[in-house]
Amino acid sequence: MVFHITAPDKSIVPALQDKIDNLAKPKGSLGRLEELAVQIGTIQQTLSPRLEHPQNIVFAADHGIVVEGVSFSAPEVTAQQTYNFTRGGGGVNMFARQHHFGVKIVDVGVNADFGDLPGLIQRKIRKSTRNYLYEPAMTPEEYETALRIGAEIVDLVRSEGTNIVSFGELGMANTSASSLWMAFFTGIPLKECVGAGSGWDAKGIAHKYEVLRQAMEKYTGDHSPADIMRWFGGYEMVAAVGGMLRAAECHIPIIVDGFIMTACVLAASRLYPEMLEYCIFGHQGDESGHKLLLDYLHARPLLCLGLRLGEGTGAICSYPIIDSAIRMINEMNSFRDAEVTKYF
Amino acid sequence: MVFHITAPDKSIVPALQDKIDNLAKPKGSLGRLEELAVQIGTIQQTLSPRLEHPQNIVFAADHGIVVEGVSFSAPEVTAQQTYNFTRGGGGVNMFARQHHFGVKIVDVGVNADFGDLPGLIQRKIRKSTRNYLYEPAMTPEEYETALRIGAEIVDLVRSEGTNIVSFGELGMANTSASSLWMAFFTGIPLKECVGAGSGWDAKGIAHKYEVLRQAMEKYTGDHSPADIMRWFGGYEMVAAVGGMLRAAECHIPIIVDGFIMTACVLAASRLYPEMLEYCIFGHQGDESGHKLLLDYLHARPLLCLGLRLGEGTGAICSYPIIDSAIRMINEMNSFRDAEVTKYF
Repeated sequence: MVFHITAPDKSIVPALQDKIDNLAKPKGSLGRLEELAVQIGTIQQTLSPRLEHPQNIVFAADHGIVVEGVSFSAPEVTAQQTYNFTRGGGGVNMFARQHHFGVKIVDVGVNADFGDLPGLIQRKIRKSTRNYLYEPAMTPEEYETALRIGAEIVDLVRSEGTNIVSFGELGMANTSASSLWMAFFTGIPLKECVGAGSGWDAKGIAHKYEVLRQAMEKYTGDHSPADIMRWFGGYEMVAAVGGMLRAAECHIPIIVDGFIMTACVLAASRLYPEMLEYCIFGHQGDESGHKLLLDYLHARPLLCLGLRLGEGTGAICSYPIIDSAIRMINEMNSFRDAEVTKYF
Repeated sequence: MVFHITAPDKSIVPALQDKIDNLAKPKGSLGRLEELAVQIGTIQQTLSPRLEHPQNIVFAADHGIVVEGVSFSAPEVTAQQTYNFTRGGGGVNMFARQHHFGVKIVDVGVNADFGDLPGLIQRKIRKSTRNYLYEPAMTPEEYETALRIGAEIVDLVRSEGTNIVSFGELGMANTSASSLWMAFFTGIPLKECVGAGSGWDAKGIAHKYEVLRQAMEKYTGDHSPADIMRWFGGYEMVAAVGGMLRAAECHIPIIVDGFIMTACVLAASRLYPEMLEYCIFGHQGDESGHKLLLDYLHARPLLCLGLRLGEGTGAICSYPIIDSAIRMINEMNSFRDAEVTKYF
């Protein structure tokens, strides 16, 4: 699937900066908020950027590698939490209610039959990927389908008026896939890319590492970004990549969640480096590889709260800060309006 | 003025932790949110803590030392911004609207006559403190009055149903007073406590440091916390100390803003160390001494966005995170409700 992604036109930046410098506050005194206002104003090409109907898209799928015991949580949790999210009972739903986010739950490969479950967007590609210790997790066709579904769901939320989006994931063993993508795409030794997932101790991490090391060793693909993604990826991760690329194509800011979604940004940026300019990194999570990966991407997350829940929760929790930035540039008085001696 | 401050009873902590560990998420996976829920549940002595009508109290006053050229901003900005805040045009008002905070603006020593200005609580002690390069900034009686006003305003917001409070300040030259308090109370060399305030360059900082060094050298008081506070303090800072102590006395969590309010926490904790247990540090600002001071207090702020506006803005911006913590413990499904296999 081909995306047409261009970097936002920077010629508006001086005008944005000038507007911000004339608000009734010491110059630069709103720090990261000022940077966010410039970024979003540039993406939207306006001095009065607006955020409309934010939505978080959760892609859910199972991973064939789970039979090797790499996931701390039981495999059936993917299906159980899919049910729970559609009923509004997950962490993602709670934070979405708090910050007035819409939530889309999309099954792209959960190993369960959901029948006609209300609140679930059913796009199952296959019940779980294959076990990448022995064969590629997905076929090239399945990879393309996952990308296309991601783009389709972003088109759906756009049709609902959304102009800022975050992505989340649900899928036992997806930190394993993320660690492999990270190791392949960055060259950072696999050991530093592997962490505790949802709760492993040192012994569990050692086993997970050993399985992933073998998988990496057995890789016989062509080392292209698409091949690495399809070999190890989860359907939910490739769908997120497709969604991010469509969002960038449509000039929609992407709020990036934790380790897994950052791995998806990394992969997406290997296909289209300009997509990085649409990313706002919401949260640095507790998974050990995440800080390394953010540093690699020169990304400075807005929050660092030790969350490691995934689902898009870190991204959603960062939203009020992004909203503050937009309120600042639109609502704050200028020195002239405020009748305050300009701090120069 | 005497406050009766006791640490919250910790016997409820295991029950709070047990409730959190049974929510449908990997154990510990909500990081700082879990810590906040335990802290506030302990302060309120309940497994279902609630936040009611948060308010931010801004104390405003001028500093006699301003004639020595220590403040980057013009002295008249204190009065101008007082007007601006009462009209809702400040950064503090904007963020307060976003997060549904009440705002109280209290004049405890601004060098201006406001007549009958709507929205301003008038408790002027004196038009500006004295110049502490030559004499103590305030008398012992004025110090007591400032403490009492702080406590009174907290009583006022309590009577309005508020059970969580933040404090902010407005007063040109108040980073100077904060640096002196910090140097006296921590023993950290003054040079490391002095920063750019609202915009000084290296030369401006050097001049500010030289003035403060002389003031420190000329100090002839008894080195008690009260004496150091009244010698160098702003009325707005001592009022904040009084407010914080009343809040702790009434078991109300205090959201701590930037450098100046952290210096007030430091001073307050020299009088009553237990007050620290009621503090939630909202934001690490850009003023160079702030990180040092937070480290000294073993405080880990929720946000680090490079704000240096004061007024309580950093505290208010951190509120959604505190709110998330309270929603988590009250709204999130347990494993049993969610029908999810417990992650151990």
